Amino acid sequence: MNPTSKDFESMNPAQIRAEIRHGNWRGPTLKLAPGYSQANLVVLPKANAFDFLLFCERNPKPCPILDVTESGSPEPKFMAPGADLRTDLPAYHVFKKGEFVGEFNDVKAFWREDLVAFLLGCRFPLETALQAAGVPEWKVPNHLTPPNYISDIPTIPAGPFKGPTVVSMRPTPYQHLVTTVQVSHKHPKSHGTPIHMGPAQAIGIPDLQKPDFGDAVPIAEGEIPVFWACGVTPSLAARNARPELLITHAPGHMFIGDWYYTELEQS
Amino acid sequence: MNPTSKDFESMNPAQIRAEIRHGNWRGPTLKLAPGYSQANLVVLPKANAFDFLLFCERNPKPCPILDVTESGSPEPKFMAPGADLRTDLPAYHVFKKGEFVGEFNDVKAFWREDLVAFLLGCRFPLETALQAAGVPEWKVPNHLTPPNYISDIPTIPAGPFKGPTVVSMRPTPYQHLVTTVQVSHKHPKSHGTPIHMGPAQAIGIPDLQKPDFGDAVPIAEGEIPVFWACGVTPSLAARNARPELLITHAPGHMFIGDWYYTELEQS
Repeated sequence: MNPTSKDFESMNPAQIRAEIRHGNWRGPTLKLAPGYSQANLVVLPKANAFDFLLFCERNPKPCPILDVTESGSPEPKFMAPGADLRTDLPAYHVFKKGEFVGEFNDVKAFWREDLVAFLLGCRFPLETALQAAGVPEWKVPNHLTPPNYISDIPTIPAGPFKGPTVVSMRPTPYQHLVTTVQVSHKHPKSHGTPIHMGPAQAIGIPDLQKPDFGDAVPIAEGEIPVFWACGVTPSLAARNARPELLITHAPGHMFIGDWYYTELEQS
Repeated sequence: MNPTSKDFESMNPAQIRAEIRHGNWRGPTLKLAPGYSQANLVVLPKANAFDFLLFCERNPKPCPILDVTESGSPEPKFMAPGADLRTDLPAYHVFKKGEFVGEFNDVKAFWREDLVAFLLGCRFPLETALQAAGVPEWKVPNHLTPPNYISDIPTIPAGPFKGPTVVSMRPTPYQHLVTTVQVSHKHPKSHGTPIHMGPAQAIGIPDLQKPDFGDAVPIAEGEIPVFWACGVTPSLAARNARPELLITHAPGHMFIGDWYYTELEQS
């Protein structure tokens, strides 16, 4: 019998990565290793790497850089020494010249010596920081992947990489909005402060119940939708550039690193 | 008769760049356009650009990124739209395969379509921020270029780029050390907090009166040497990588941008 997220509660990130590598977890990672750094993955040929790194540098809110591998190495030696980015995520998407090839549980068959892997921050660890500050837990049903939306907020292009800002949304009780902003500010590697709070239409999202990626989640009475720049932004920009080969995580299925959120806190 | 720094006091950065472009200022830039962003320049072929950008990203204290040009364009379109990086600095150093070619007042003869220019933060605008917080002006004699030293603090390598951290030093009255740290913290694009305060020997500098770059400056009774990571670090790392072509600013002879220091302040 495969483990459930409950079984993973006592495991550290390296143990969870080993379970994922052995095929024992293929679901979203929101509830795994609470408080540990999670990352969006973008893998590109080195020929595209400068322009993509510049895109990330120019757009730090959607693309906070956690680690970038040496060309050909699948090991993120800063964020998780010993890990293997070809096998340690539960699900990958592969694109060739911008066309979707498929979803895979490992990408060993696609790996090449000229590939560079980018690990970009994710807001999941922020949930732990918010709870530590007294914001109630966000009870997303287990089978759902938190929703992402394509907004009308532009990014700053770099070379062929461009496109709109993709945002995540977390319903937040209005009593906790101020704390949410203050806690988020301390975590630029988890996308920092929200980029919007309030009506979705104001940032070009017509219907919160129809996310572009992931699943719709309920918004309760007294909750206000709060939006953060999201790490799907660079995935989408990379796809739009139609590179020869592109490997990303499947939305919601992130890489889990070794850093605890307090290690990345800015004063 | 050429203008003196006194004549420049009422000029804005664009006017000063025009004077420099026309050969009317060839000295250090410390006292020009007080409070405006100044930048270290590193120009490399695009073949080296990814590894160098990654070096900067991995070493943000010595290498705070202000602007990176598109390949072949000499215009820093974010930091100073309309400026020309081939002509708008008072002095350049040119290296081929790591060997010093010479000092030049413009680099039009060396420019190529595959060059990428990196503008990296400088601590000069911090002087204005420190004075605004009550720290007395640092009276460096006009003819001197502030000193830089090669410390024994390592950087994190990226590809062929590696080397020690080069540091700047500002003598600071002990009564102002706390304010100096607090003000510096708000300015990560000017190298942020000091990396050392106290004896130079502790960071591998044998003699403060023998700087590796620039000129020795006096340290008065009651002053303590304060050291910041310095933008000569990436110049030295670039030179050590022995790229086919490398263009840098001459130490102390920076690019002056359009941003006022308060625009780059972090909360």
